[in-house]
This record gives sequence, structure tokens and C-alpha cells, in this order.
Amino acid sequence: MSTINKKFRIAVLGSGSWGTTIGKVVAENTAEKSDLFEPIVKMWAREETLCDNINEEHENNKYLSHIKLPENLVAVSNILETVAGADLIIFNFPHQFLATICADLAGHIPAGTRAVSCLKGLNVDENGCQLLTDFIYEKLGVSCGALSGANLAPEVAIENWSGTTIAYKLPDDFRGHGQDIDADVLHKLFARSYFEVSVVDDVAGVSLAGALKNIVALPVGFVDGMKWGNNARAAIMVKGQLEIIKFGRTFFPECAVKTFSNESAGLADLIATCSGGRNARIGKMMAETKKSAKECERDYLNGQSAQGIHTTDEVYRFLEAKNAIDDFPLFAATYNIIYQGEDMKKIPELLKQ
Amino acid sequence: MSTINKKFRIAVLGSGSWGTTIGKVVAENTAEKSDLFEPIVKMWAREETLCDNINEEHENNKYLSHIKLPENLVAVSNILETVAGADLIIFNFPHQFLATICADLAGHIPAGTRAVSCLKGLNVDENGCQLLTDFIYEKLGVSCGALSGANLAPEVAIENWSGTTIAYKLPDDFRGHGQDIDADVLHKLFARSYFEVSVVDDVAGVSLAGALKNIVALPVGFVDGMKWGNNARAAIMVKGQLEIIKFGRTFFPECAVKTFSNESAGLADLIATCSGGRNARIGKMMAETKKSAKECERDYLNGQSAQGIHTTDEVYRFLEAKNAIDDFPLFAATYNIIYQGEDMKKIPELLKQ
Repeated sequence: MSTINKKFRIAVLGSGSWGTTIGKVVAENTAEKSDLFEPIVKMWAREETLCDNINEEHENNKYLSHIKLPENLVAVSNILETVAGADLIIFNFPHQFLATICADLAGHIPAGTRAVSCLKGLNVDENGCQLLTDFIYEKLGVSCGALSGANLAPEVAIENWSGTTIAYKLPDDFRGHGQDIDADVLHKLFARSYFEVSVVDDVAGVSLAGALKNIVALPVGFVDGMKWGNNARAAIMVKGQLEIIKFGRTFFPECAVKTFSNESAGLADLIATCSGGRNARIGKMMAETKKSAKECERDYLNGQSAQGIHTTDEVYRFLEAKNAIDDFPLFAATYNIIYQGEDMKKIPELLKQ
Repeated sequence: MSTINKKFRIAVLGSGSWGTTIGKVVAENTAEKSDLFEPIVKMWAREETLCDNINEEHENNKYLSHIKLPENLVAVSNILETVAGADLIIFNFPHQFLATICADLAGHIPAGTRAVSCLKGLNVDENGCQLLTDFIYEKLGVSCGALSGANLAPEVAIENWSGTTIAYKLPDDFRGHGQDIDADVLHKLFARSYFEVSVVDDVAGVSLAGALKNIVALPVGFVDGMKWGNNARAAIMVKGQLEIIKFGRTFFPECAVKTFSNESAGLADLIATCSGGRNARIGKMMAETKKSAKECERDYLNGQSAQGIHTTDEVYRFLEAKNAIDDFPLFAATYNIIYQGEDMKKIPELLKQ
């Protein structure tokens, strides 16, 4: 007879399209694996009306319409009520809300709680470039992994086949298998027949790939919008992939090249993001309409944000502080086009080194 | 005063869409750089009517309509007349014609003639897997480089920006700079403002990447045709890229991983081919129409061929002989779907190792 393991209780913070999709994925698994997980998954949605929509209609008409959500995915408008008793907190909202949300949570998360971040971004300040997983650990004391992959939310939501990568390092105070979150628990929580999960331990590589690919998607969108064709967009993607790897190896030498080249969180996510993601669409709209990035974000994203616009700025400032702009011509060109009025038609010459 | 260098005479064999496009590129350069090149570029076109069209209208209405060709690009229907006096012969026709064409040329190519192959394929027989550049050297005694890159012909033809890679090793009987084809001459012959050339010496890597990417484009097309979305197609591309690199490193250990990851001939070509190339279209049509690969090739390619269909077969037989099928699940799945009637919906399980 096996010993009775702890039943892990899962909370999801965020109910945008990706937050809701991940909520759906994990709620499907907690319902099926009630020996391992508490079936009810609480998902924080700030707006009462959205909570009502999710709990009454089992849909998210605002950010993920026409997708039936599991009934054991329960929306909660109070964030502290959402995380109460959670063993694993999944962070899944736009990066710019992270500091405020961590401030709201601070002092309310018991020691030994674990987390997985689905956020795409970096924190840049005078101290350098910080991974969001490290920021979460610093503010809340919870060990935090990262989930990222070629996972355009609407496609995962309708259960099209895709892969993903979860990076998680066992913490120093790991309580033992069966008693704590580990690679096996994460696999059981996230893997579906339509959602292939690879668990690795390179949190830096997965985080960086997830953040930096959003920069690359913008110039791919420019090229698309200028109708330069498949050759040009492929050239931009490869230059982008090489700058992502160079950034990782230069500033986070613990990360592994193979995370970028082999994992869904690496090259696959770059390709998918450049093909159908928000940032590529914003870049394309900029080329087609001559509007600014901010105007395009406001006019075409229905209230959601294009993370790459912020990441482009943050990374540029960091590279400037490191005196390393010249080593990252695509990142620099993207910044100059978005923030300095550079002409996107000059991309070929801007990329010549 | 500089010494008078030899003026290099260029011949192009093949006048399909890519042959004609490359003829256009090099003829633009030979016209502008008449100190270095004989301006007239002869291009072999088997059909007299096509020759007339090219020489009288300066267009190729059969394979590359609406593109104005340089007047110094001269079509010739006799292959021996085309290559007479050539210092560099550019091979650019479907792989399946190579053996016949080499037989026609044998005995007519002077020692010291050089070649660049734009063909995409491999020769597989009981002796193993042979690069086409090596086959050309074996049959004609000419040192042969390889040109490959993210170069969908219609886009290069309209002068959209792209990159390419030329792999060339200086031969043992190299006659010295200024007197023979070298990296600098190749750069001057092929580089245009819209066509960025990188010259490397990894002929095996460039050749393999160019051939094997056509296999990968087929299942990407399947996934497109089944409407599985951007996440799934990105997942297939990455699995394909990893199998290409594994194939190269296993069977041609002299090739460099960085050719596949950094060069236009590597990842960029894979991405572009999977987005807009013939093989991806054939894969997509197979999924949408349930027709066989051969039927789709006949019905949708206007007399041109989808190289990947042949390469899939050849590579599978080679892997079978090497007892290595299990190490290449995507290549094997593609073969089984095309040649053995396997259901393409089973791709996720076929790729599980």
C-alpha cells in the first residue's frame, strides 16, 4: 500500500488569455488526478464581472471567448483568498503588475510555498538584469520555476498540440518526493495529451528565452508589414536567436545553449511568437499604419499588452549600462525604431556589423 | 598600377525559377564588375522556346514570370556551348537530372574549371550518402562549392532582402588570388544590396542543411494543412533542426554545428522553406486534399519538383542501412506518411521517443 501523499493545492494568479488557458490545463489535471491534487483550482481575476462570467458560464468572454473552462476552475476576485492554502502559485499576468502584486502578497505566503512563473520579462534596474523568478523569490521567499514554450494561448486553449518547457530547481528546503513540488508533480500538473511538457533545471535559460523572444518578434513584424517576405523574416529570426543566446551566455553564464536551441521555450517559442504572437502583430501594424508601438498596442490588443515593447526598452538600457550595445545590433535596431524614430527600412544596414 | 587579372567567365546550368534568379543575380554583378568578370553570362535552358523568350523578351515566362532579366544573361539550349570557356559553372537544376547532365558534360570540362552547386539533395547508394558537390567532383574533376540559404526564389527575384551562404574550399591546385576563384571572387559575383553573402568553408554542412530542410518542410506542411497552428509547426521545425544537426554530426563529422545554427543556409533556410517553399506547400496540399505526394507535385507545381519527396526516401533508406531509423523519428514519420500510408494525425505519438 502506498502512503498517503499530500494533496497539492494550486492557485493561478492572472486571468488573461494565457492565465486562463493555463488555469484550464491545470484544472483538467487536478480533476483527473484527485489523489495527487486538490481538484479546485482558484484563479485570481481582479474584476468581479469577469469572476462572475467564469464561475457562472465557465467561460472568459473578455480574454478567451468560446472556450469552455472546467467547472473546478474557480475565479476569485480577492488575491489573498486565491492563494490561501496554496502549495503552488502560478504567476501568469503581464510583467508590469508583478511588483504591485508581490507587494500585496508579501507577508501572506507561508514558508515552503512554491511557485511557477509564466511571466515573460526581466527586471532591469541599477543593479543589473534580474530574472522575474529571482524577483519573486526575493519579495516572497518562495522558490520559483519558469514555464515557457511555443504556446500561443488561443491555440493551447483549443487543445492544438504543442510542447512547453518548465524549469524548476529543487529548493534547499525541499521536503522530499510526495511531500513537495518536484519535476514529477509539475509534469503531472501541466502535461496533457495536447500539451507536451519537458522539465529542466535551467531557470535562467527558460526565463531569458521567454523574455527576449518578444523583442525579436517586433522586427519580424516590421519585415512582415513591409512585405519583405519569408527570406527576410527568417533572417531576422536567426539573428534574433543568436543575440538571445549571446545575451544569455554573456550575462547569465549558468544558462545552457541547449535550452535555447532544443527546448520548446527556446527556438520553438521564438518561431511561434514571430509567426502569430502579439508582438509580431504590433510590429506589423507599426509598419502598415505608421502608428507608434504604444498606439498600436492601444488600438489592436483589446486591453492586453505587448510585452516586447517594454522588454526592448529595458534590455537596451541594460546593454547601454554594460557598454554592450554594439554586440546586439538587432536589439539595438528594434529599440531605435520603436523609441527613437529610426526608419525600419534601414534594417539591413542597421544589422551590418 | 594593379596587374591585369583574368576575367572570369560564368555559366549557369538550369533555368527554373531558382536557376534564372541566380542567373539574374550574377549577371547583374558581371555587368557592373567588368574588370573582374566577362559580362556575358550564359544560362542553359533545354527548351528552344524558353531560350527565345529569355533572349528576346528578357523574361522567363515559364518559371519566373514578370521579372525583367539583365540583357547580358544569355540563354543557350546547347549545354556544351553554355559551358565552353567557363571558369565557374553554377549548377542549378533539380537534383534528379544531375547524373545525366554530368554524363553529358564529362570529357568537356577543362581541368581547373570550378563550380558552385545550388542543388538541394544527396546521392544515396550502396556506398552510403554522398554530397552532390562530391559527386560533381567525382564525375567532372571540378572543385565544387555549395550555395544555399533562406532564398525562396520568387522573393530573391523581386529583390527582397535576404542572406545566403556559399561554402567553398580552395582546391589543391588553386592558382592564386586574382587567377582563380576564391572567397573574394565568389562574394563579388553573388553579393547584391538585396542579397547578403556569407562565404564559409563547410561544404558538408551547407549541403546537408540545404538537402535535409526539404524533408522537414513536408511535416510542417502536414501540420499547416491540418490547421494545428503556429505552436505545432514551430515544434516540428525545432525537432527537424535537431535531426538535421544530428544527421550531420553523425555521418559527416567534419561539418560544424554553427553552420546549421548561425548561417542563412542553416536555420534561416529551414524557417523560410517551412513557411513558403514548395515542399511545405506539397505537405499542406497532401493534408488538405488527401492526395499522394506525387499527385500533389503533379497537380500544384506547374512541372517543377518538390525535392523533399525524393530526399525523404533517400535518407530513410540510408538510415535503414545504418540501422539508425529510431534516432530520427521525424524523418521516419515523414517517410511513413508519404510512402507507407501512415496517418499524419499520429505525428505527436510518432515523435515520442
